[in-house]
Amino acid sequence: MRAVEIIAKKRDGEELSRGEIDFFIQGYTRDEIPDYQASALAMAILLKGMTPHETTDLALAMAHSGEVLDLSGVVPIAVDKHSTGGVGDKTTLVAEPVVAACGLPFGKMSGRGLDFSGGTLDKMESIPGYRTNLSTDEFIHQLRTVGLVLTGQTAELAPADGKLYALRDVTATVSSIPLIASSIMSKKIASGAQALVLDVKMGLGAFMPDLDQARQLAELLVSIARLAGLKAVALLSDMNQPLGNAVGNALEVIEAIQTLQGGGPPDFREHSLVVAGHLLAVGGKAADNLEGQQIAEKALRDGRGWAMFKRLVAAQGGDTEYVENPGRLPAASLVETVPAPQSGYLRSIDACVVGETARALGGGRSKKGDPIDHAVGVVLHHKVGDKIEAGQLLFSVHANDPARLEEARRRLLEAHTWSDEPVHTLPLFHGVVGG
Amino acid sequence: MRAVEIIAKKRDGEELSRGEIDFFIQGYTRDEIPDYQASALAMAILLKGMTPHETTDLALAMAHSGEVLDLSGVVPIAVDKHSTGGVGDKTTLVAEPVVAACGLPFGKMSGRGLDFSGGTLDKMESIPGYRTNLSTDEFIHQLRTVGLVLTGQTAELAPADGKLYALRDVTATVSSIPLIASSIMSKKIASGAQALVLDVKMGLGAFMPDLDQARQLAELLVSIARLAGLKAVALLSDMNQPLGNAVGNALEVIEAIQTLQGGGPPDFREHSLVVAGHLLAVGGKAADNLEGQQIAEKALRDGRGWAMFKRLVAAQGGDTEYVENPGRLPAASLVETVPAPQSGYLRSIDACVVGETARALGGGRSKKGDPIDHAVGVVLHHKVGDKIEAGQLLFSVHANDPARLEEARRRLLEAHTWSDEPVHTLPLFHGVVGG
Repeated sequence: MRAVEIIAKKRDGEELSRGEIDFFIQGYTRDEIPDYQASALAMAILLKGMTPHETTDLALAMAHSGEVLDLSGVVPIAVDKHSTGGVGDKTTLVAEPVVAACGLPFGKMSGRGLDFSGGTLDKMESIPGYRTNLSTDEFIHQLRTVGLVLTGQTAELAPADGKLYALRDVTATVSSIPLIASSIMSKKIASGAQALVLDVKMGLGAFMPDLDQARQLAELLVSIARLAGLKAVALLSDMNQPLGNAVGNALEVIEAIQTLQGGGPPDFREHSLVVAGHLLAVGGKAADNLEGQQIAEKALRDGRGWAMFKRLVAAQGGDTEYVENPGRLPAASLVETVPAPQSGYLRSIDACVVGETARALGGGRSKKGDPIDHAVGVVLHHKVGDKIEAGQLLFSVHANDPARLEEARRRLLEAHTWSDEPVHTLPLFHGVVGG
Repeated sequence: MRAVEIIAKKRDGEELSRGEIDFFIQGYTRDEIPDYQASALAMAILLKGMTPHETTDLALAMAHSGEVLDLSGVVPIAVDKHSTGGVGDKTTLVAEPVVAACGLPFGKMSGRGLDFSGGTLDKMESIPGYRTNLSTDEFIHQLRTVGLVLTGQTAELAPADGKLYALRDVTATVSSIPLIASSIMSKKIASGAQALVLDVKMGLGAFMPDLDQARQLAELLVSIARLAGLKAVALLSDMNQPLGNAVGNALEVIEAIQTLQGGGPPDFREHSLVVAGHLLAVGGKAADNLEGQQIAEKALRDGRGWAMFKRLVAAQGGDTEYVENPGRLPAASLVETVPAPQSGYLRSIDACVVGETARALGGGRSKKGDPIDHAVGVVLHHKVGDKIEAGQLLFSVHANDPARLEEARRRLLEAHTWSDEPVHTLPLFHGVVGG
């Protein structure tokens, strides 16, 4: 078997066999197949597509390019969730401890933020002392003893995916649904997941602006999961406006804490409970997602979720004083509240612009390895459809630099558009695939 | 400008600007753009195509990636020919001295054989002493003083093309008509050509088996030439059976000498004269190709072409004793004549199998840099359509190894197919583009 023949086969639109995909990924992982052959194959895949079977084989080959966790002796069923990335998406911070509080152990390896979308690890690192670099042994130990882990992916996890992702980023081969899907699933399979809730975002603040494309991705993810022997459900969720009010690392942790304490923005609270409900269903703790949601709501209301969050922080070395007193979390030196410039109905809040603005304030990175400022960000005070009077509080900017603050204020004012006529609120979800 | 954005534009089927193509090729030549980006672009070009304008810009960018010869002070008009490669194609060895004998100076930089197709340089190197590595200064001096040069391409000629061609070979991106056309034209432009005859082969023994594809390539080559300011004509010639009788390096030199001396196989003689006629027409020495052909025929008939060939050999250090007495050229130790196994009409002679057989005897290379045996090869004694009696001489094999000889005999017998009914002869040409 030769790499060039595999590339030619995909170039000609043929379906690759499992053996061919394994050969290519194994060779690529060992540096026996060079980047220039992998990028040619990636472009051929982008332009010619892959079947669900091929995509599953690719996900499995990348998962098995490194260590694959076996959690079957650790937990009755290994559940996991994945979000395709959005603005203000701190769902894991609420859904995970709530699910664990309901008696379903939950160990999650998460990623960092890239582009306009924030990363769960960056948010948790707002809490002084919190470690996101647990070893595999530490991960397993904590999952067994605490029933809840939220840490970073180890380098050994699906190394072929890491290598191919970096290559795709510089060869214009990111925007392929089969490549996106196999990348996501390779990491989930490698981290030992057996049941999965996929939060596939669509809209202005998502990587898939279009509902049809998001649905295609959701369907492909669920197909791969099933072909690979995992239980899975995918939610199609709206990301045209940010989720909740806060966008920025410490600001989002504070909003998650408020939600775990029974408050928080209603949209974010509901989104987290829906995700938790599906997790409890795929994890066998509820007959269906609606029953799961009721169980989750109870654990949120009676404070068990909040208690579990504090156990998580403590278990990973975080100082719980900071989460008990969120005012002590990193705070920006400049906080400016901005009033509505006019009266009317909020027609839209461009989530992508809000995400980019938070990044530009220093809260995100332009490239891998950039340092980030945990304190800065944006708090919105209204959702699409709200009726607002001129002069009412519209948003606040948390900054550590006056020029950046001014630029953020300007961009955020532009990100809000207005209507004189009543405007429909946006749905939280557009559907469920594989439920 | 960023390489990844140029790749994305082509991936999306858009037309690249001249500036973008120049940026990419210049960066690639200087190793600032890595192979993995070039292979992704090549795959996107293969699958999305390029317009004649883009293909011309690519040819020009690759031509200008190194030294570009300016022959305007050396010859009145710099003519050149290019064959896309075939089996038994020793046309240059006859057409070039004949054209030069008609008063049109002709300096040619040629390539080596690859795959089943032989290379002009390999053939000429059958002549002891003949140098194919002239420097640019030697090339210009000989063109000025002798009016005839036949040497190898210098490394400085279109280095981006050399680099990209090697990359395409291992990334399944060879079979793109725009990439093939820009590669051919980059070398012709870099070597200073102003008027060009393109011999585009189609059929079993050509890289383009299909007439439609060959016509597409011919049309694109002529378009590029015109957009780049060159005069050009492309001949669509048949390569289903080998051209002439001899296939193998010294055997082809001998056949060329016989032709220059007034003999040789009629098909090869006619092919060479047609090419020479077009060369004289584009070079302004004849009103049209038919007048050119008459002029060429005269120079062949009266021995001026043969004299010119000897001057060429002498000028480049070759020993003319060997061409005066071709029996002294490298000869194989084993020569076996094979009779026709049956009576009938020759239906086909698979040129590709004949070319592969000559290579397997040692006459060609499997990869760049392999040594070759100049003595070995095949001489066919019949053309498609001939009526043959069982036992008549069908072909002879010239080998230096008994096992290889046996294998060659077997393959060549299979390459000849038979019919009881009369069979049409094959045409030499299928048309002219840009004439």
